[in-house]
Amino acid sequence: MKKYSEMTREELTAEKERLQARYDKYMKQDLSLNMARGKPSIEQEEASIEMLDIINSRSNLETEEKQDVLNYGNLMGLIEARRLFSEILGVPVEKIVIGGNSSLNMMFDYLMQCYAMGSGEAYEPWVVQGGCKFLCPSPGYDRHFGIAEYLGLELIPVPMTPTGPDMDIVEELAKDPKVKGMFCVPKYANPTGQSYSDETVKRLAKMETAPDFRVIWDNAYVIHDLTGRHDDVLDLLDECEKAGNPDRAVLFASTSKVTFPGAGIAVLAANKDNLDWILKRMDKQTIGADKINQLRHVRYFANGLEDVKAHMDKLAGIITPHFNVVLSTFERKLKPLDICTWTNPNGGYFISLDCMEGTATRVYNLCKECGVTLTTVGATWPYGKDPKDSNMRIAPTYPSLEELAIATDVLCIAIRLAALEKILED
Amino acid sequence: MKKYSEMTREELTAEKERLQARYDKYMKQDLSLNMARGKPSIEQEEASIEMLDIINSRSNLETEEKQDVLNYGNLMGLIEARRLFSEILGVPVEKIVIGGNSSLNMMFDYLMQCYAMGSGEAYEPWVVQGGCKFLCPSPGYDRHFGIAEYLGLELIPVPMTPTGPDMDIVEELAKDPKVKGMFCVPKYANPTGQSYSDETVKRLAKMETAPDFRVIWDNAYVIHDLTGRHDDVLDLLDECEKAGNPDRAVLFASTSKVTFPGAGIAVLAANKDNLDWILKRMDKQTIGADKINQLRHVRYFANGLEDVKAHMDKLAGIITPHFNVVLSTFERKLKPLDICTWTNPNGGYFISLDCMEGTATRVYNLCKECGVTLTTVGATWPYGKDPKDSNMRIAPTYPSLEELAIATDVLCIAIRLAALEKILED
Repeated sequence: MKKYSEMTREELTAEKERLQARYDKYMKQDLSLNMARGKPSIEQEEASIEMLDIINSRSNLETEEKQDVLNYGNLMGLIEARRLFSEILGVPVEKIVIGGNSSLNMMFDYLMQCYAMGSGEAYEPWVVQGGCKFLCPSPGYDRHFGIAEYLGLELIPVPMTPTGPDMDIVEELAKDPKVKGMFCVPKYANPTGQSYSDETVKRLAKMETAPDFRVIWDNAYVIHDLTGRHDDVLDLLDECEKAGNPDRAVLFASTSKVTFPGAGIAVLAANKDNLDWILKRMDKQTIGADKINQLRHVRYFANGLEDVKAHMDKLAGIITPHFNVVLSTFERKLKPLDICTWTNPNGGYFISLDCMEGTATRVYNLCKECGVTLTTVGATWPYGKDPKDSNMRIAPTYPSLEELAIATDVLCIAIRLAALEKILED
Repeated sequence: MKKYSEMTREELTAEKERLQARYDKYMKQDLSLNMARGKPSIEQEEASIEMLDIINSRSNLETEEKQDVLNYGNLMGLIEARRLFSEILGVPVEKIVIGGNSSLNMMFDYLMQCYAMGSGEAYEPWVVQGGCKFLCPSPGYDRHFGIAEYLGLELIPVPMTPTGPDMDIVEELAKDPKVKGMFCVPKYANPTGQSYSDETVKRLAKMETAPDFRVIWDNAYVIHDLTGRHDDVLDLLDECEKAGNPDRAVLFASTSKVTFPGAGIAVLAANKDNLDWILKRMDKQTIGADKINQLRHVRYFANGLEDVKAHMDKLAGIITPHFNVVLSTFERKLKPLDICTWTNPNGGYFISLDCMEGTATRVYNLCKECGVTLTTVGATWPYGKDPKDSNMRIAPTYPSLEELAIATDVLCIAIRLAALEKILED
């Protein structure tokens, strides 16, 4: 195979006809495949299914602090659940609060609090300050952007690099006192799969910002290694403390992609001042999250982090082949053509693919017409608009390996067709 | 026994000495009893314990709409869970959204939305309008008042009557366009245990209010009958629709006092416009509540309302004796003295006691010194201030019958001592 840039117009036209024929063949197969969302597969769920047996009517329900898990109470969560996340996140247990089944919910509630009540006793609510802005490393997580957009914040995209957001740009933008915060997925970022370097974390901790600037540190993939290699990311809470900005970071994580996506437990971690402010709200909001589910998790992972890691290894055994199908197909069918690039992460849930500029929407539509659903183009950008129309988020976990092989083949054909259309029309 | 008002000063002094001696005896017993919170007892929890066996690794997890309960998704909740609450509340299923384990959380989130984003597309957020007020039937539920206070709303107490809040006063106050809503516990109200009459509900539906006025209709005790008799309350959603104010009411309920206080399921019901507005927020806030717990509930109550009612009868068999201990003791030890009044509800979780004016704090302190914890005096009033210092909320469910007998005896002694002190000092 030759690079497209080295082909003559005739070669390109012939290549397009060949691909169109293969595409038409797939069109006749009534495919219905989905690579759109970062959902664990049924096989992954099965790997945790015995957690459903942990608590039953004959279980000893006694907790370390002798709390009645069936009754009301315990705003911060069971101490044993807090300790489990303390190990997972590498954050002291006193900084940790357990939530319900969704870390997104904890983020939304926290940002809503900042918006309506301020990000601390000393600060005016963002709604009162008006014109507040939020930094959005892009490509990034659409549901993050969705929260900020809902709150009417101005979303400012910041380019991602292999070591995290472009810190020169971040530092410049963060000086604006109307910039109130930033979304970060520091490890195996959604969707690039890349992790923040130590320098990035230190610069985030040190940079000049408004005093009520907050980093939403969504450590969703903190233990989600896929390969022998695994990335290490510095603890932002710690770095912020060292840098004299102890209130800057609020951490989030969950077991949604460890146990069950719909019935895991979520967590928030913050320094004392932020935590007091957050608990002041939570104290009015709820009497406490579901403690039975907390107990279910800590009993299932009875040896703490050690058990969690063994479980994640089991999951990696299921997920890695999915990534490999996509990556090896890309390697074979796209690499020699030199028309696009993609990431090859050590963990997480996504591969980020950059097609030829101006073709991502066309690729999406070609796939869709053929029965292959991809993440909406632009979803990884603030306001759903990818300025280069090139980025696609590939989520390999949910489809079966067979489905994935077909879907990836369709995707590769679509990427090549769209590129050829573009080159030939120019 | 004579009424205190008919006793001579000598008789009163002798009575006081007798009671003081009995009080001192209790003081020596190192009691530690709690009648403070409306918590189900361990015996009540045991009555639902088999629900923990409903879902295990061998369960058929298939739902009516073939959703994967372990995975993400389903913002409104399982259709079978929505149908269960449709039966319980008498509200069409399409108006119902299932939440997590806490209806308080759903109320907080809804009020926060009204505050920060407005109570509908057409209305300015309450924070922007400024100076917003909320009507608080009093005595009422401290956690309701806590939410409104957190949001900086001005809390306006409205006297409760045996048929609900005093509607002459409510109608007058609701005309103020800054009055944005009202808390109601329509059935077996917290803490009076009384229920709203048909006339009250109709007047609430019809009265003149600001267009963004919302009734927080917390039907926490909708199926919580204790006696053969049970109260019937009109459906406010329906009445508001008939009265041409379809957006006025938002309903809340939960199974916190049906199954497990900490791990039940909560619900919100509203007409289409309100629901669309609420779902627009929820769609950014979460990917959906815990569906395993929803399935656990609908499988446990496999025959719907019929099974729920049978379960509530079982719970009534546990709770009613608790109420009877308190009520019969009051009847014997307080009734003849004519110094206080209390409610005798057909259901719910509380007895509301009105001591002699100006003595409730003293009663509370006498009990506390003796090791008997009661709900903080004033907690049932906005800002924690009972203008008459007379109301006490008695929560009989949690202590054992033996503990309750002692606690109630201590309480009666304290009520009498405080009244005698008051009479003798005048």
